[in-house]
Amino acid sequence: MSSRDQIGYAVEGRVALITLNRPDKMNAFTRTMMAEIIAAMDEADADDRVRAVVFTGAGDRAFCAGADLTPEGGGHVFSDPDTVDDLSDERVRDGGGRLTLRLFNATKPLISACNGVAVGVGATMQLPMDMRLAADNARFGFVFARRGITPEAASSWFLPRLVGMQTALEWCMTGRLFDAQEALSRGLVRSIHPQAELLGSAMALAEEIAANTSAVSVAMTRAMLWRLSAAEHPMMAHRVDSRAIYRLSRSADAREGVASFLEKRAPDYPDTVTADMPDFYPWWDEPHYR
Amino acid sequence: MSSRDQIGYAVEGRVALITLNRPDKMNAFTRTMMAEIIAAMDEADADDRVRAVVFTGAGDRAFCAGADLTPEGGGHVFSDPDTVDDLSDERVRDGGGRLTLRLFNATKPLISACNGVAVGVGATMQLPMDMRLAADNARFGFVFARRGITPEAASSWFLPRLVGMQTALEWCMTGRLFDAQEALSRGLVRSIHPQAELLGSAMALAEEIAANTSAVSVAMTRAMLWRLSAAEHPMMAHRVDSRAIYRLSRSADAREGVASFLEKRAPDYPDTVTADMPDFYPWWDEPHYR
Amino acid sequence: MSSRDQIGYAVEGRVALITLNRPDKMNAFTRTMMAEIIAAMDEADADDRVRAVVFTGAGDRAFCAGADLTPEGGGHVFSDPDTVDDLSDERVRDGGGRLTLRLFNATKPLISACNGVAVGVGATMQLPMDMRLAADNARFGFVFARRGITPEAASSWFLPRLVGMQTALEWCMTGRLFDAQEALSRGLVRSIHPQAELLGSAMALAEEIAANTSAVSVAMTRAMLWRLSAAEHPMMAHRVDSRAIYRLSRSADAREGVASFLEKRAPDYPDTVTADMPDFYPWWDEPHYR
Repeated sequence: MSSRDQIGYAVEGRVALITLNRPDKMNAFTRTMMAEIIAAMDEADADDRVRAVVFTGAGDRAFCAGADLTPEGGGHVFSDPDTVDDLSDERVRDGGGRLTLRLFNATKPLISACNGVAVGVGATMQLPMDMRLAADNARFGFVFARRGITPEAASSWFLPRLVGMQTALEWCMTGRLFDAQEALSRGLVRSIHPQAELLGSAMALAEEIAANTSAVSVAMTRAMLWRLSAAEHPMMAHRVDSRAIYRLSRSADAREGVASFLEKRAPDYPDTVTADMPDFYPWWDEPHYR
Repeated sequence: MSSRDQIGYAVEGRVALITLNRPDKMNAFTRTMMAEIIAAMDEADADDRVRAVVFTGAGDRAFCAGADLTPEGGGHVFSDPDTVDDLSDERVRDGGGRLTLRLFNATKPLISACNGVAVGVGATMQLPMDMRLAADNARFGFVFARRGITPEAASSWFLPRLVGMQTALEWCMTGRLFDAQEALSRGLVRSIHPQAELLGSAMALAEEIAANTSAVSVAMTRAMLWRLSAAEHPMMAHRVDSRAIYRLSRSADAREGVASFLEKRAPDYPDTVTADMPDFYPWWDEPHYR
Repeated sequence: MSSRDQIGYAVEGRVALITLNRPDKMNAFTRTMMAEIIAAMDEADADDRVRAVVFTGAGDRAFCAGADLTPEGGGHVFSDPDTVDDLSDERVRDGGGRLTLRLFNATKPLISACNGVAVGVGATMQLPMDMRLAADNARFGFVFARRGITPEAASSWFLPRLVGMQTALEWCMTGRLFDAQEALSRGLVRSIHPQAELLGSAMALAEEIAANTSAVSVAMTRAMLWRLSAAEHPMMAHRVDSRAIYRLSRSADAREGVASFLEKRAPDYPDTVTADMPDFYPWWDEPHYR
């Protein structure tokens, strides 16, 4: 699992860079790539130096052209016989969803530098990321209905949260490709950049977070926004954020946050995600596949 | 129920067209119209030739001017005595909501060609549709608070999903009319068209879906996006889409989807909604009024 | 509690104006201010003359610069010792959340006239308001991660409903300040006004609601949109709005609403929130902190 045949992983300063690395295949997604990204995320989450994770694709044509449908793709469902009757069996689980649920549980900000074509799982894997930057030549497609399958990777949950129901339905029902400008106008990406400046812009955004914020604060913020916004009543948020403010306002990071603010200097937060998350975290029971 | 006094129903190619047809009354909504639309939807869902349903109003002034408040409206609640004490009684149910819940459960894409005034239930009945196109003379109004009543047709659930909370609140609290341009800028409609081109544009969008996608894929996509986006955790989406990918990736439609893609030709999907939905569909228990 | 040392409260026509009133402190938030706003909301909700509530800050620099971190702030958590072990204890509750949950339960439209800097709780207290107008010099910041704490005031529930997940995450993860134009383009505020015209525009919007709508309709609309949009299925909305339409369509306000519409005159609604809410309101059990 540590071989990393199909991705690159590097820590540059306070930012981990994960590069989908099958440029001759337009970085098409395989089971191996899925496992390697998950392993890299485990490494990034365990490494307190890493304050944010940037994702991009090798080359300047594609972020990821979707699932590799060739035999070389390594056992994709299209080529498997249908041998499992019990649909709650773990072997039924969609690989894209295994990945996006892992990204959903990340403790670091995830930033996409979408450097070209992003189709199928190449598009849906970006949805649980926190911010998406696109190259001006990026193109997206939720093409599943054009292949006789359905949206996967839990995208039916993620996509409407980003672009609203009407756009989500249109993109998934037509399955058509669309360009970076449409992605920007509907809210899928936050900004468009010249190809040559894309990765630098994504790294700068990651560095802005690293330079100014508490790692514990950001990890808590990430879990709170993604999870509590889906609650039926704001009281659930009040229960969690009351606990968070109560604990963290007395933390070393809060002292440093207030002191650096009053002294008008850059902060130097001592607390870490591996050691200093508040005692009630996680406050939820993670559901299992069944 | 098959009389169709107040609507038109026609199948043109792969698209069913439902026309609200009381042009001298600005297509005002009645119990009869409600029943006729529901019956037409039953017909469209049962007809595998039909790949999408387009809704419009007769004439070029109104899509639907709201509930017909005259006696001719046929027993609208405003003219009924209040004789039911038990509010869980079926007779209490709002007619607009009976309609929108039926549309919510449609298996075909629903596209509105909003050709003029859309007020009250004329606006709310469009919310569970998947895509809304407007004529440049279209006007909308969620006017309920200006009549001493409240938003109906389950619009308190649908409207914020389309336009966000701030716009939904402003439109419903002021009850004011607004034009197509405002509807576009806030995300209620996806595009504006000259009156003469509106219906053609809606039919072309329906035809784009029909020509390129699998009917089973689109029916599944529709249910997944509307239902799973409202779940509290993406695991619910992962459970359903894992099953969907597992079953459908081995379907005749998936074989045709991949083959037509690799052969760069138009697809010809064999599977149908009436015969080939995956065995776990529907995966939910539909709630009842109570 | 009626002292009102830190806010102003005035009823002008049909609109209550609540002014955060510590201009020499940029209207920084304290426990006293929290209690005074809650008391003023109780008064506004109990006063049937009041049809809407407008919030602004004294001076032209700040709406509210966040929590007062000085000892004068009056017992803010940053200065308390951590003496409560049981995080479900009422004393753990966040003051910002006490306020926003009170605003969430208001029966009148809440309109913000954001006249300058709105940072921390100065930003989050505006989220449960229904409409936000900003002066052209307004600046916002969800700065919590820059202070070593987390978003509070149940903002993890409110903010994504207004601006979508991507923007909410970016604003909270970077903690950076942003201007009125960005707030408008992302949907946080509905409009921008010159400082000198801001309050007048907010009052005019409040008056537009007062002049044209039923108070009972608006109170019901407010509860329905905020609460039912968070339900998992539109049937929940159908249950409530069926009851609402059934009861209210036979109310004095509905008779006046239809009569004034047919007679093309301004309405004069007789029903009041204190006396005439439908018998099934509230239809929910309010959750408690625990």
